Parts: sequence; C-alpha cells; structure tokens
Amino acid sequence: MERIITLTTDFGTEDAYVAAMKGTILGINPRATLVDISHSIEPQNIAQGAFVLSTAYSYFPDGTIHMVIIDPEVGSQRRSIIVKTPKSIFVAPDNGVLSYILYHASPIGYHPEAQPKGLPPGLLAFEITNPIFWHHPVSSTFHGRDIFAPVVAHISLGVPLEEFGKAISSINVFPIPQPQVAESGDLIGHVLHIDRFGNIITDIQRESIPLSKFRLEIAGQRIDSLSSAYDQANRLLALIDSSGYLEIALKNSSAAHLLDVKIGDEVRIRKGQ
Amino acid sequence: MERIITLTTDFGTEDAYVAAMKGTILGINPRATLVDISHSIEPQNIAQGAFVLSTAYSYFPDGTIHMVIIDPEVGSQRRSIIVKTPKSIFVAPDNGVLSYILYHASPIGYHPEAQPKGLPPGLLAFEITNPIFWHHPVSSTFHGRDIFAPVVAHISLGVPLEEFGKAISSINVFPIPQPQVAESGDLIGHVLHIDRFGNIITDIQRESIPLSKFRLEIAGQRIDSLSSAYDQANRLLALIDSSGYLEIALKNSSAAHLLDVKIGDEVRIRKGQ
Amino acid sequence: MERIITLTTDFGTEDAYVAAMKGTILGINPRATLVDISHSIEPQNIAQGAFVLSTAYSYFPDGTIHMVIIDPEVGSQRRSIIVKTPKSIFVAPDNGVLSYILYHASPIGYHPEAQPKGLPPGLLAFEITNPIFWHHPVSSTFHGRDIFAPVVAHISLGVPLEEFGKAISSINVFPIPQPQVAESGDLIGHVLHIDRFGNIITDIQRESIPLSKFRLEIAGQRIDSLSSAYDQANRLLALIDSSGYLEIALKNSSAAHLLDVKIGDEVRIRKGQ
Repeated sequence: MERIITLTTDFGTEDAYVAAMKGTILGINPRATLVDISHSIEPQNIAQGAFVLSTAYSYFPDGTIHMVIIDPEVGSQRRSIIVKTPKSIFVAPDNGVLSYILYHASPIGYHPEAQPKGLPPGLLAFEITNPIFWHHPVSSTFHGRDIFAPVVAHISLGVPLEEFGKAISSINVFPIPQPQVAESGDLIGHVLHIDRFGNIITDIQRESIPLSKFRLEIAGQRIDSLSSAYDQANRLLALIDSSGYLEIALKNSSAAHLLDVKIGDEVRIRKGQ
Repeated sequence: MERIITLTTDFGTEDAYVAAMKGTILGINPRATLVDISHSIEPQNIAQGAFVLSTAYSYFPDGTIHMVIIDPEVGSQRRSIIVKTPKSIFVAPDNGVLSYILYHASPIGYHPEAQPKGLPPGLLAFEITNPIFWHHPVSSTFHGRDIFAPVVAHISLGVPLEEFGKAISSINVFPIPQPQVAESGDLIGHVLHIDRFGNIITDIQRESIPLSKFRLEIAGQRIDSLSSAYDQANRLLALIDSSGYLEIALKNSSAAHLLDVKIGDEVRIRKGQ
Repeated sequence: MERIITLTTDFGTEDAYVAAMKGTILGINPRATLVDISHSIEPQNIAQGAFVLSTAYSYFPDGTIHMVIIDPEVGSQRRSIIVKTPKSIFVAPDNGVLSYILYHASPIGYHPEAQPKGLPPGLLAFEITNPIFWHHPVSSTFHGRDIFAPVVAHISLGVPLEEFGKAISSINVFPIPQPQVAESGDLIGHVLHIDRFGNIITDIQRESIPLSKFRLEIAGQRIDSLSSAYDQANRLLALIDSSGYLEIALKNSSAAHLLDVKIGDEVRIRKGQ
C-alpha cells in the first residue's frame, strides 16, 4: 500500500540507526515512501525536534504518517503514542515532541490541565501497548526500530489505530514559547530557533507585530523596519519567515553569529505609536 | 506519473526546509522519485552548487527534472527559470547556478553577450511567472517550497513548459573557470573544488595536459608524473578524476589539508618539452 | 523490477558522488528503492564501515541488495565482489568491508586460512569481471559509479550472479574484534564504536557477561551494575545495546566525551564471583 512516512529523529546519519528503522518499515510495507524530515536534531532536544517538525508536517499530503523519535527516556515507563489529526498521523514517545501538533490543532492552544474533557476536537490518541505489532525481541534502547517502526509500517498498511492500544484522552505537551507584553507595552519575544543560514527565528508571529513604527531590539542592536526579502539591505534585517514567525537575518551571512545569540534570548519590539 | 526529481540546495538537513519541499512535491505527484544530489552546498555559494550539480546530472536518466535552489536573492526581482536540454529539465533561480549546464550544452561555450541569437541549439528556457501552479500564499523567503517545488511537481505530471511562463532567449551565467596559457607556455589552472576526501579538483581538463614530461606545481610542491589510481604512491599524486578534471590527491589522506589550498588557488603545469 | 538497494559509503553528502551512483542505478532500474545506510563513514575506514553495515543489514527484507563502497584501493588490482547469503546480496570491493557478514554467516566464525574448503555453507561469492555490465569509460577513481552501481542495478533486474564474473571460494576479511580472557579471569574487551550520542559500544557481547556481581572498568571509572535503560541513573551506566553489545552510556550526555576514550581502548569486566 502506497503511503508516505516521514522520519524526524536525533539519530544523526553517521550510524545505521535510521537505516535499521527504514529496513524494518520496508520489510513490512515495501511500498511505503520514506521521507526524512531531519535526523540532525540535537541529541535529546525534544523542543528542537518539536519545532523542526512543526515547520514541515503541514506541507505533506493528507494521510501522511509522521514518525518522530527523540526519545531520551526509551526503555522507561514513558508512553508511546499515536495521535491522529484530521490530516495526518503522528507516532512518537509521549514526551512533548508533538506539542506544536496539539497546539496547532486547538484553536485556543492545548493545555492538558485546563482541558479535562480531553484532546482538541477532531483529534484521537492511542497508547501503543499491543506487542503483536512489534519486532521481537524488543531492545530496551531502540524502540524506534523495535516498536515505532513496525507500528508505523502496520498503520501504513491500514491496520486500524485501535488495534495498537487503548484510546487515551490527554498527552504530554510543553508550553509553546510565546512572547509577552511588558508593562511598557513592549512585546518581549524569544529566540526560538537558529537555522543553517544563521537566521534567527523568534516566537513572535506576524499577527503580533505592530503595524506602525516598527522598532526591534536584539542583543543591543536596533532594527527600524520590516523587510520583505534578504537582499533588501546589507545590514541586519527583520522579516516574516516562511512559517509566519518574525526572523532576524543578515544578507549572505549569519545573523546569529554576528549577534552571538542563543535559543531563549530576548527580542523586544517597542510598542507602536 | 513516475518521474525522477533531484534536489540540490544550500539548505542543509538540520532544518526541515528540504522536507517541506519534498512534502509539497509529493502532495502534487505522489509517484515522483526524489533523489538528493546535495544539500550541503555552502550557504549562498552559487559557484559551488553549480559545480556539484555538474558532476552528477548527466548520470541520471533522460527526462529527469533537476531542482536547484541556491537562492540568496529570493524575494527580489531575480527571475525563476526552467531550462530544457535534450536530456533533462532544470528548475532554478536565474542566478548562474545552471552555468555548467549551459556550458556543456554548447559546443563553443555559452556567452550570452556573444550569442545574440539566444540559447545554445537544442535548449529551451522559460521564465516562471504563472502563479496558477504555485503554493499560496507565497512567502518572500522560501520560493523553493512555494514556487519551485509545485512547478517541478507539475512538470513531473506532464504539464507543458509553456504553461509556466513565457519563453526566454538568454539566461544568466558566470564564466566557467578555465586554465590560461602563460607567456612561458605553462598552463595556469585553478583549484575548482575540494571534496570530502580532501582531493583537490582543478579546472584543468584531461585534454589540456601535455602528453610528455608532465610536471605540476601547487602550493610550492612538485608532482612529476600522472598516476592512475590513489594507491600508486604514498606521496602527493596527480590523476584524472572521474569527471575528467586534473586532481591532486594524497593516498588515505587529505591533499587539501597538507597543502593548505583554497578554491581559486593556482596550479601550474610546466610546458611539455 | 521493485527491489531494495542500500548504500553504505565514505563519500559524504557534500559532493555529488552518491547522487551519481543513484542516477546510474535508476537509469538501469527506475523502480529500485534506494535506502542510505550511511555516507558518513570516516574516509577509508573499512572497519567502521563494516561495523555500521553490520548493525543494519539484517533489518532489511529478504532479497535486499547492499552496496558498500569504502574503497581506498580503487583503480588497483583489488577485486570487486558479490556475496550472496541466504537472505541478501552484498556488492563491495574485496577489502574486508564484508567481514561481519561472513562472520555472522558462519557458526564458527570465518577464517579464510582455516577454511580451505571455502566460504561458510550457504554463501556464494563472485568476482566482478564482466565489463558488459559496466558504465564506460570506466574511471580509475570512481568504480562506485562506473562498476558497482551498474552491477547492482542489473542484479536488481534479476541478472544471474554468474554473469558478472566467476565464482570465488574465499574473500578477504579482517579479524572481528573479540574480548579476551586475562589470566586473572577478567574479560578484556575493546571500544568498537562510538555513536552520535557518545555511547560507547564495546566488542563484549551479551553472552559473555557474568551473571553475578557485574563490575566494569573503563578509563579509570567503575560501573557496578548493568542497567536496562538510559534514564536509570544520572551517572555512567552499562547496558546491552540494541545489537547485543555491551554499551557504556551517560544519560542525556556523551559517555565518550566524559571518558575521553577512542576506538580500541580497553574495557575490563572483573571476573564474576
């Protein structure tokens, strides 16, 4: 059965971990189309994996299965889960790596403690408990190969999700980074991601940016206008990136290197006047 | 429709940029076969991307579509183009990244200013202007995902090239690096590329090498014979690489590291006697 | 013809070497499914390539063809070979890179000098000599593209292995690293591999570990119990990895960095009491 399966991991590509998962999947469903999202997530960096996944999954066609294995607690009691949205299926350890998926699926954001009635409407979730679909013996250090890969492959063959384990009504998420409004009225955002080009992606979204008199401060530098393309200036510039976030960039160079910023650092937008 | 699509970018594989393009393509043509040429082109290095592409494209079967996104001017007025050769189709920004393609297609080299009648015989080129095929809204920073990927996917489905925009009669190229003959009769070439092994690839091609009394100088070192395999000597050696270029190598080690050379550095072949 | 082909090389992904091989394969068999095992093997490191391959190949379905190109002697007289096991086919230079394959295939290990009767039972091997299947002209530096890729593609189309060259009865292997028992009764193993996470994989296998009173020493550190998961302790821990080897790890961190060990370093398990 033809079906697209994506893979996001912190396994790197030096070792054969990713290949062992792909071999396992293709052994069960030789017609699956495997697409790497990234295997260069920093080891154990769940927040980074969640963010990188969040920038790509919506571009895949309906029915795509996304396998996300950043799994520092492998072998412990952490749950393994399947989450079904109207468009896609996600298979991952229940450690927050699907936080953006839940957040995007819920018009008001997803806060498990505030939502006693369960998951956002339209979502289903299952805990993976049925060993029938696993690769035995199951190692204690590589559930990606022994549990997640065969489960994903069987999902791609059309096995109903209920067969993998019981439905669950909440899953673990971390709070999605959000800018705050300071007393002064300034918007205080944060560095969310630094990409390969050294572009600095912030947690400030298009809608939060004041329409008049844009003024941004980051790492002691000031940017006084919003650009629409990288080549508009030979200095630091701010623009809206391809996922709708405010981005700080430097034409043909690395803004992150120039500013020496790191994830979580503050970005301030002065109150519009 | 089954069709091979290759991807060459400077996007790296840490972020999900490549995956977002692949998802977009597969959403339009789920039967496309996607092959990475390289995503490790140095950011914004058009010349490197053009060279790396030049060493691989001819090994793909007829009808392959090559998508080449090294695009520092994305969002500006630079054109987006489709180039059709008798064998393949190339989709790229019009910034020189297809220079080797044009050069190889033309028996006398391609010099737009010297060819008022247009492209080399057998080639067609189109400017991508028809937004019907794009992914909307089009971001200003990621045309790879929003314009090039859907155009490539529609080409792979058989949409005629004229439908993407009007035919154009010249495209931007940079001068392909070429060795020069010095007054002394020596051939002065240049370092064109350094590969993962530290092999130094020069712009001197097989045909230009004197048949008698080979003597090469690079970075103060002398090589007095042409070898045919890496293991012929435990010292610096010169041989013809797999693309027909003169290459300087060091058995089981990095010639580039030993010689501390960089792209553009001089390589001299003494005049044959 | 649909067939899975895996690729393991030391070519990296910065250059287009891997892509040139893939294009060549797809030109001959457009329906092949290509899966990368790793292209990040250290240049010329045959032992590392052999090990990385050994941890993945068995997870691929029956009939998979594994192409392994770590080939420092390319262009010399070294043989190019095809090895057929009951489950898979391997195509590689005859330089030891298939040592684990032979070792796993033989219940008593594979020692060519001790096995005058030839290969382990159930295995066939062929030397690649028939130029009909090659890509001409054959370069002297890139047999991966000009010999191995077209041979692999033709195998995937069902060409009988005898057609590529004559059967051979022994192939080159290196001794698989093995722990030794010291006079004291201690088991002296070695660091076999360090993975992306900094996990230290040793050549000590599950079966050799004493069941009582486990005590391990490495780089002056002591570990007094065998764990079953990474999150069982916030200190150095020892566990059985997903391939059955004893592994030293550090929760959410790099054991290799902490201990500053390298391949071949000693790991000692004190004699059980």
